[in-house]
Order: sequence, then C-alpha cells, then structure tokens
Amino acid sequence: MENRVYNFSAGPAAIPHEVLQQARDELMNWQDVGASVMEVSHRGKEFLAVAHDAEKDLRDLLKIPSNYKVLFLQGGARGQFAAVPLNLKGDKKSADYVNSGHWAQSAIKEAQRYMDVNIAADGKSNGFSAMPSQDQWRLSKDAAYLHYTPNETIGGLEFSFIPDSGDVPLVADMSSNILSGPVDVSKFGLIYAGAQKNIGPAGLTVVIVRDDLLDHGSLMCPAVLDYKLQAGNESMYNTPPTFAWYLAGLVFKWLKKQGGLEAINEINGRKASKLYGQIDGSGFYQNPVDAQWRSRMNIPFTLIKPELDEKFLAESELEGFRYLKGHKAVGGMRASIYNAVPEQHVDALIDFMKEFERRYG
Amino acid sequence: MENRVYNFSAGPAAIPHEVLQQARDELMNWQDVGASVMEVSHRGKEFLAVAHDAEKDLRDLLKIPSNYKVLFLQGGARGQFAAVPLNLKGDKKSADYVNSGHWAQSAIKEAQRYMDVNIAADGKSNGFSAMPSQDQWRLSKDAAYLHYTPNETIGGLEFSFIPDSGDVPLVADMSSNILSGPVDVSKFGLIYAGAQKNIGPAGLTVVIVRDDLLDHGSLMCPAVLDYKLQAGNESMYNTPPTFAWYLAGLVFKWLKKQGGLEAINEINGRKASKLYGQIDGSGFYQNPVDAQWRSRMNIPFTLIKPELDEKFLAESELEGFRYLKGHKAVGGMRASIYNAVPEQHVDALIDFMKEFERRYG
Repeated sequence: MENRVYNFSAGPAAIPHEVLQQARDELMNWQDVGASVMEVSHRGKEFLAVAHDAEKDLRDLLKIPSNYKVLFLQGGARGQFAAVPLNLKGDKKSADYVNSGHWAQSAIKEAQRYMDVNIAADGKSNGFSAMPSQDQWRLSKDAAYLHYTPNETIGGLEFSFIPDSGDVPLVADMSSNILSGPVDVSKFGLIYAGAQKNIGPAGLTVVIVRDDLLDHGSLMCPAVLDYKLQAGNESMYNTPPTFAWYLAGLVFKWLKKQGGLEAINEINGRKASKLYGQIDGSGFYQNPVDAQWRSRMNIPFTLIKPELDEKFLAESELEGFRYLKGHKAVGGMRASIYNAVPEQHVDALIDFMKEFERRYG
Repeated sequence: MENRVYNFSAGPAAIPHEVLQQARDELMNWQDVGASVMEVSHRGKEFLAVAHDAEKDLRDLLKIPSNYKVLFLQGGARGQFAAVPLNLKGDKKSADYVNSGHWAQSAIKEAQRYMDVNIAADGKSNGFSAMPSQDQWRLSKDAAYLHYTPNETIGGLEFSFIPDSGDVPLVADMSSNILSGPVDVSKFGLIYAGAQKNIGPAGLTVVIVRDDLLDHGSLMCPAVLDYKLQAGNESMYNTPPTFAWYLAGLVFKWLKKQGGLEAINEINGRKASKLYGQIDGSGFYQNPVDAQWRSRMNIPFTLIKPELDEKFLAESELEGFRYLKGHKAVGGMRASIYNAVPEQHVDALIDFMKEFERRYG
C-alpha cells in the first residue's frame, strides 16, 4: 500500500488508489506520446479522446439523457454559485433557494448579487438537524429556478429524495454526493459539482444542464462561466484543466469497474450505516442529525466528553487516521467517506472508535 | 529520457523534466503524509506550506514589491478578461486597450461586456507584424486602466518594452511570457497569466495586483474572481486547484535552481535568436514579424513553398518533434520555446530544419 493512510478528508479528498497508480505510471510518458498528459494541447487528438471518453463514461454512469449538455469547467461550486443566476435568470426577478446549512447559505449569498432570493425552506430553526417536509415549502410559481444542496458537507445533512419543483427548473449543488448512487437526472434542470470530493482533484467543475436552459444567460456572465458558449465549444472556450479532466475520466472508468452507481450505492449505504451504528450504539459518540436526514458521505460526530476531542484526534492520527478533525463551525470530528474511501477504512475507524471508548469511556 | 519527445506545444506546454519526475515520485505518498498532494485539505498545514512557498518563490523570482498581492486562481486568462474590468472599473466609464493580435482582441471583446473600450493602439493595419510606436498611441486620461498583451502566442509578436501609461494603471496579460526574463513589476497595476505556458499545468491563473486597486470592484463580480475577497482569503475563498498550485511551486524552485530570471533570460534570448537566425538565413523559411517585435516564446514560421508544410510536419513528427503545427489563424508551423524547452531541443529542431531544406529546398 506504499505507506498510504486512512484518508477521511472532506475535500480535496481521497482518490481511488488504482487511479493514482495509473496516473503515476504514465506521468512522464502518457499513451506513448512522449510527454505527460499535462504537456499536450487540449485540442490535440489524444486529449480530445480523453475528453470525449470522460463525458461518455459520466453519461453512462448517471444515465444522462441526450437533451442534457455535460460541461467540464473551472471555478468550483463557488463559481457556480454565481454562474447559476447569471445563466438561468432570463427575464425572471427571483429564484427559490432551500437553506439546508453552510453551503446552501453560501449559494444564497452569492445569488443575491444578481437577483432576489426567496427562501423556500429553511432548516435553521432546528440547527439543520432536519429540513421541513416538502408540503411546508413556500415555492414561487415565477421563480427562475429552485436551488438546493442535496448534501451538506459540513453539517452532514443529506436529502434522501428529489424535491418536486413543478415546472420550475430544479438546480442542485451535488458537489459532495454526486456519483454516490443512482440519480434521476431528468428531474433536474441543472446539476453541478466541484470535483474534489467524488470526482477527482480540485480545480474541475462538472455541470450537467438541460438544453432548453441555455438561452437564459445574462450578458454580464463572464465567458468562462457561460454555459451556452462553453457547450458550443465542448468546454474548451478557454483552456480546460486538462490533468484534472483526465483524472476525472480515470475515476469514471474506475467507478464502472466497481459495477457502476448501483454497486457503489450499496457499498456507500453499508459504510454509512455501520458508522452511524457505531455512533448511536455507543452512548459515547453522538451525531446531531435526524436519522432520515443523515449524510452518507460526511459524518460529523462528537464525544459525550468533549474534553477528549483532542486526545481522540491525536491518538487516531498515530494509528494512521487522517483529516478527522471536524469543521470549525461544528467542532468534534468528521469522517468523510466518499466513494474512494474503502469499506475496510471505515471498519478500521470503527475498530479504533471502539478501542478508544474502551479506554476512555 | 524515458522516451520523451521534443515538445513545442503552445500550451498546455512542456513542463521541466525534473519537476515531472519529482511529481511522479511522490504522487502516491507526498511528504510522507501517506496520501497524494491531491488528496489533502488545502487548509491543512502541509498544503499551506506549499502555497506559501510558491508565493514566496514567485515573489523572489519577479522581485514583487510588498505592496502587491499574489493570487492563485482558476479560470485562466480568459477568466481574467472578465475579472479585470469587473475588479478595476470603479467609477470609470472606459478602459484603454492595445490591440496586438488574437489574444488582445479576445480581451477587448470580453471587456466590452462591462465597459466602453478605447483602442489606444492597433497593429491590425499591418497584419500585426509590428505595433505603432508609443508616441502614436491614443491614451485616455480618465481610463480605468490600460491593458496590453506583452506576448501574442498565436501571432508571435512581443513587446520589448513596458508601455508608459502615466497615472493610469497598466494591466498586462503575461500568460505566454511571464517568467521568461526579469520584469519591473512596479511599473504595473496588475499582471495576470494562465499557468499552462511558463508556470505549470492548465487550470491555474496567477494574478499580481497592486494593493490600491483592490477597492474598485463591482458587485457583479463573481466571488471566485473577486481580487479583494481572494486576497483577504489567501486565494482560498473557494477550494484552489491544489495540484496545479503545487506543480507551479516546483517550477518556481526549478527556475531558482537554473539561476533565476536573469539566467533563463539569457538562455531564452539565445534559443530565440538561433531559431530566427535559421529562419532568416535560409531563404527557405520565413517569419512575418518585424525584427524588433518578434516573440522569444512563440515563433511561427512558414515555408517559401507552402505545399511542403504537410511534409515538414509529418517528417518532423517522425523525428520526435511534436506540436509544431501552426495555429489555424496563421498556418504553417509554430515552435513554442518556453522556459521548459531545453536549448538542445531548439538545436535539434534547427538541425532538422537544415536537413529538410537540404532535401527539399
């Protein structure tokens, strides 16, 4: 295992071991072109094949209908927080946003630069431990779109259903749970995701956008974030982040080899339910999110005795567990268990948690 | 040499061999953290050290004064084409732009989304073989800034002097000649550069901006492109492209090891003057740019007998010369000889050109 550790980073996060090995092995001389994949033109036939393969594999994995464009851009989800209103506003005055925590709030704040925002549902009053049920949401009929965050990386809250937005296009920031299981893309107008959690390295953003939404862009939208322009140029209006795109393509092939999204969905379900089981069963660890709203990707937990937090982090680090420190907004610990985190690593963490409790509980 | 070729790509372009070797050797386990540099948090102490080192080394190389901020962003130079007006417009109505060719024109087109553009100087009438002398430029006293493109990657035209913009901030798109030699940063308000030519892999943008220009931003500027916000967050308002940043840092260290910008400047001058010498001395090859406006980085050339172009490209490819095909806007051939292209590769190209002329001239 080349001395690799248990990596529970929230992002940039673990990348599949086999993908990194391949990237290493061909880093100096890729596909016998005599150069690194980083050193060749994005418009050369070799890289174009990578770009097309990556798109095709992503389409296969997510069963993306043919009336959707797939874009590989820069700027991350935060870039999309601006790109979404700039591209979808059209002649509308406002958009609906669901406030499910830190990242939803950040998206709302950015959208307010460009249009009025109506908060359609808010989990704030109960500390984001659950969201109001859909019959309580206040949707606007003339909203440009309804935006939500299917998984909150920091709070550890995840939607187990796709909201019904009626005729209003549904927009999702899937940065931290895209490709964690099957999803019905046809229910969405737009899906976007920063790559650095379930796709590949930081610096790449995947956008999946329905054709009919490409005609609502604002002239104020920077060209690099303009969906229509990028779609018309196969995401190469500006030089794309080629190495990140290549790595994403390798991750998509790896996912297919694992059996696709149905197979990884099952593994992810098992990983999460084991870890929550350990937390709930212990009386020593705790997680604040209501059972049906718990994230399968990011699992924050605290100790009943918070004075032991530092000890937990220090001792787990000695055992090879990395990046378990919780986000400063939440404290305690957080285990991010994306696709690339093997089930055995979760098992090892659970063993450590049991042993830690045995010694200090 | 691991079967590597002579890489004359215009961008993404050659990266120093030693840099790639180091990246390969530590790809699976970087600095003994037990993970790839791609897999760790940008806010962890290990990556923060990379980020700080890269900035320090770049400051050392370019002798960047302390009243300038250095940003590591996404979106490339095309992203900056929008970011510059969005950040620097302030209460001004217009900006001055110098039109030196393809990239200058692209910058102008994008700026026109946000403000009026005055063309201060234009090389169009003579096919961009030279620019009007500075006494003929029409500068506006109340321009928000004066923008120019020190090196045109496609046309192969380079400024050998820094324009005098008076009290108006001078802005430069240095994507294709940054770090090719020393430059007096204090003469500029803002310098930006896509990384994929002289800095590292595609997907990273370096911005060097004078402190006093951080207060002119528009509310319409997407947060990820907002200089003030990014400066206040050490370029980590959104997750940065960590692997590209790391590689850029390795390139900066490599440059220091070569003797810094004075040393690389001498090598670059020698490489370019040898290649132009071969072109001019032959009567078989030609370059359309006036001698004092010729680029040291991108050298387009055509054959007196254009029917031999395809043969030149095919035979040179067999000898291991790659990406010599000229941009479609110019035709013929182009040799991009950035810092990472060794002098011996230029020598080898010259030898090939001589031999090709001997056979077909």
